[in-house]
Amino acid sequence: MTHTDTIVALATPAGAGAIAIIRLSGEQALDIASSVFVSVSGKKLSQQKTHTIHLGHIKDGDRVVDEVLASVFKNPNSYTGEDVVEFSCHGSNYIQQEIIQLCLRKGARMAQAGEFTLRAFLNGKMDLSQAEAVADLIASDSEASHQLAIQQMRGGFSSEIKALREQLLNFASLIELELDFAEEDVEFANRDEFQALISKITHVLKRLIDSFATGNVLKNGIPVAIVGEPNVGKSTLLNALLNEERAIVSDIAGTTRDTIEDEITIGGVGFRFIDTAGIRETTDTIEGLGIQKTFQKMEQAQVVIYLFDATVISNGGEKSQSVLQEIEKVKNKFPQKTLVVIANKVDTLSEEEIKKLQVSLSAVEGSQTISLSAKTGQGVETLKNTLLNFVNTGALRNNETIVTNSRHYDALLKALEEIQKVQAGIDANLSGDLLAIDIRQALYHFGEITGEISNDDLLGNIFANFCIGK
Amino acid sequence: MTHTDTIVALATPAGAGAIAIIRLSGEQALDIASSVFVSVSGKKLSQQKTHTIHLGHIKDGDRVVDEVLASVFKNPNSYTGEDVVEFSCHGSNYIQQEIIQLCLRKGARMAQAGEFTLRAFLNGKMDLSQAEAVADLIASDSEASHQLAIQQMRGGFSSEIKALREQLLNFASLIELELDFAEEDVEFANRDEFQALISKITHVLKRLIDSFATGNVLKNGIPVAIVGEPNVGKSTLLNALLNEERAIVSDIAGTTRDTIEDEITIGGVGFRFIDTAGIRETTDTIEGLGIQKTFQKMEQAQVVIYLFDATVISNGGEKSQSVLQEIEKVKNKFPQKTLVVIANKVDTLSEEEIKKLQVSLSAVEGSQTISLSAKTGQGVETLKNTLLNFVNTGALRNNETIVTNSRHYDALLKALEEIQKVQAGIDANLSGDLLAIDIRQALYHFGEITGEISNDDLLGNIFANFCIGK
Repeated sequence: MTHTDTIVALATPAGAGAIAIIRLSGEQALDIASSVFVSVSGKKLSQQKTHTIHLGHIKDGDRVVDEVLASVFKNPNSYTGEDVVEFSCHGSNYIQQEIIQLCLRKGARMAQAGEFTLRAFLNGKMDLSQAEAVADLIASDSEASHQLAIQQMRGGFSSEIKALREQLLNFASLIELELDFAEEDVEFANRDEFQALISKITHVLKRLIDSFATGNVLKNGIPVAIVGEPNVGKSTLLNALLNEERAIVSDIAGTTRDTIEDEITIGGVGFRFIDTAGIRETTDTIEGLGIQKTFQKMEQAQVVIYLFDATVISNGGEKSQSVLQEIEKVKNKFPQKTLVVIANKVDTLSEEEIKKLQVSLSAVEGSQTISLSAKTGQGVETLKNTLLNFVNTGALRNNETIVTNSRHYDALLKALEEIQKVQAGIDANLSGDLLAIDIRQALYHFGEITGEISNDDLLGNIFANFCIGK
Repeated sequence: MTHTDTIVALATPAGAGAIAIIRLSGEQALDIASSVFVSVSGKKLSQQKTHTIHLGHIKDGDRVVDEVLASVFKNPNSYTGEDVVEFSCHGSNYIQQEIIQLCLRKGARMAQAGEFTLRAFLNGKMDLSQAEAVADLIASDSEASHQLAIQQMRGGFSSEIKALREQLLNFASLIELELDFAEEDVEFANRDEFQALISKITHVLKRLIDSFATGNVLKNGIPVAIVGEPNVGKSTLLNALLNEERAIVSDIAGTTRDTIEDEITIGGVGFRFIDTAGIRETTDTIEGLGIQKTFQKMEQAQVVIYLFDATVISNGGEKSQSVLQEIEKVKNKFPQKTLVVIANKVDTLSEEEIKKLQVSLSAVEGSQTISLSAKTGQGVETLKNTLLNFVNTGALRNNETIVTNSRHYDALLKALEEIQKVQAGIDANLSGDLLAIDIRQALYHFGEITGEISNDDLLGNIFANFCIGK
């Protein structure tokens, strides 16, 4: 794959719509665009200024394919850093294909997934972590995942890494310089300042590594297992959460959901709900397998909600005991997991029954208990706040750098390992030449994040996750 | 619905993609856009020239929503004729909704279906038939439907109607002028020239009305019923037609088809294939119902293909007879429909068997017979040419005006009726005042097509068929 030829792709989602955008980038972009586009003004696109828009027709010989707007971006002032032309055409599938085919016949080739952004990286328009953030941004579907992506795209993460890298690079140079003067026993690198820098880097790396737990959860959503029998109101509860949120977020796109296993955004954070059956004890082998499956699903979750029908438990009795036993069982099986016990349908209870319910629930120790009615919405707000409290959104609000990318996480872990070797070397009073090796290794891992160090395989893996046209 | 407020909508297809376009149009478009967009250059959008593009950020207060390009179009040089701003943003659903919501909070309202194009019409940027062609263009999925739409959008149809309307209007004025000088018995309108014009208009109207049959078929695809039992190779045949075409049209989008009932483009013309079961005679009531259904489907078709397995008939015998009987039955039931009889799987026959097959088929009179192999592709080209011959694509090639819109068709019929009254009036030597009434009626129907005559109900009906954002 060479990166000097001119690439073309549909940049808007597939399917018919009012407008579609077809994007050309590369040395021949203006020539190819001019060969298919006849401007109303009569001027060639190559004669136009950058960042201007021109009305005209896409023509295949004498045949008019469409009336379009052509946007001209001249290198280096474009997304890719190359000459770019974007055709804004009528969004029929037929027209999209015709224009792309025409550009291919005139010498462009189909862009690969992420190739426009890859070129932006190769041409120095953004570093690698910023390029990765572009894909995250397009995939973002909640306020939290969006905010993380846009912070990373705007360079918040890279600038922190780059600053540390430069300071470390500076010391590495000084220490390597000492090696040239080894016989004179000089110290260009102030050891106190060096120790201070290594301490600071260690601190920052640890903070960034710790942030990954939060970042990963904010980016991908928090897995929540709902344990509850079919008729206790799981769907109603999730729809109550969804509808309240929908009223806030948007009244445009109608959202309906039929399955329990779905993602719902609450307070800007995504929660992935996992449906599980109840866990009643049984001797039946097949039902026993069902329990195994329920436990497996709970294993994947970060939060477990135990949902039951309050009308059943409020009367005390056998059924009530079996619910309390099940709750104990969940607690014993997963002592580390956060458990929320929810009594649903409290709107149908008398005051006396509610009192009985509260007495029963007081037996559940060490877990949060919430009484609510998914039907009337009573108590749903409390549940939302409870769920949000499990997420450290403080870092997000304070605009702290949060790591969301497992590739970055791995590189940070490796960098920390090397920095800790450097620290051990300082403590053991190691000579400069040995220190220098570990410092270079740490620098290598820093460079991996921002893309100063990269190779074709790495780039191939990263950009394969992009959509075509970006 | 007022048309002075500022409207906003997503103009690209729904869903996540590399780029999405959010479009604002109206008096406040630049102000609203400026209130959410902070340019990298620091300049306000309202200070920028028309047809220029600006890099900047969409901000909700201090929060950065996205890095976008803003395209500025100043009235009257825009699609709608109003001030227009288009934001080209990262195509996540979340970002699209956030930007639209932000614009709504700043005073825009959601655009209704087709409202941008409605405004273009109301502001004189296009006539009504051109506006209707925009929706046809977006819906076009074959070369023929695309070419019809683009011809209409570029005004090919309206200009013909407008020219006739103007000449007729001129005569109407002259004849009405005569009425003012009624006592002097003058003739401002040369009756020979008038007769020539009415003849010409009659001729053109008849041609346009006749073209609707072709136009309708080219726009919506030609319905073809395939009669054949399950194992005779219907799917293989349609895939053979599809694949050959796909190799020509596009090697980008992988197209697969599982159902027989689907549209396939052949030589730029759409064919809608309708699957039907065989029509074997039976006394069973349920099977009898199946035959009813088959006949109903054939009723909707313009062309009927009778497909059978050549290996069965080539040996003569009972099965062979039953196939020939079925063909006769179809011919008797639908004598007016075009029937194509196809013997499939001829690649598996020996030379002798092919001879026998030909003898059998020679018994089928008055229908085209084609021997082919859907598997090897042998004979498929012949079938394609046969199907294309049923369509009058000559008019398309010669760039003749073709009517595709049933609203236009109705108006043309009514205009012709009035023109024929005028002709009758001329023949009967009617007085100018009576002629003038019929001429005005004809002018009214001409005006309905181009939108010089319109009302809110009519406009509402037309633009309701558009997508939102166009």
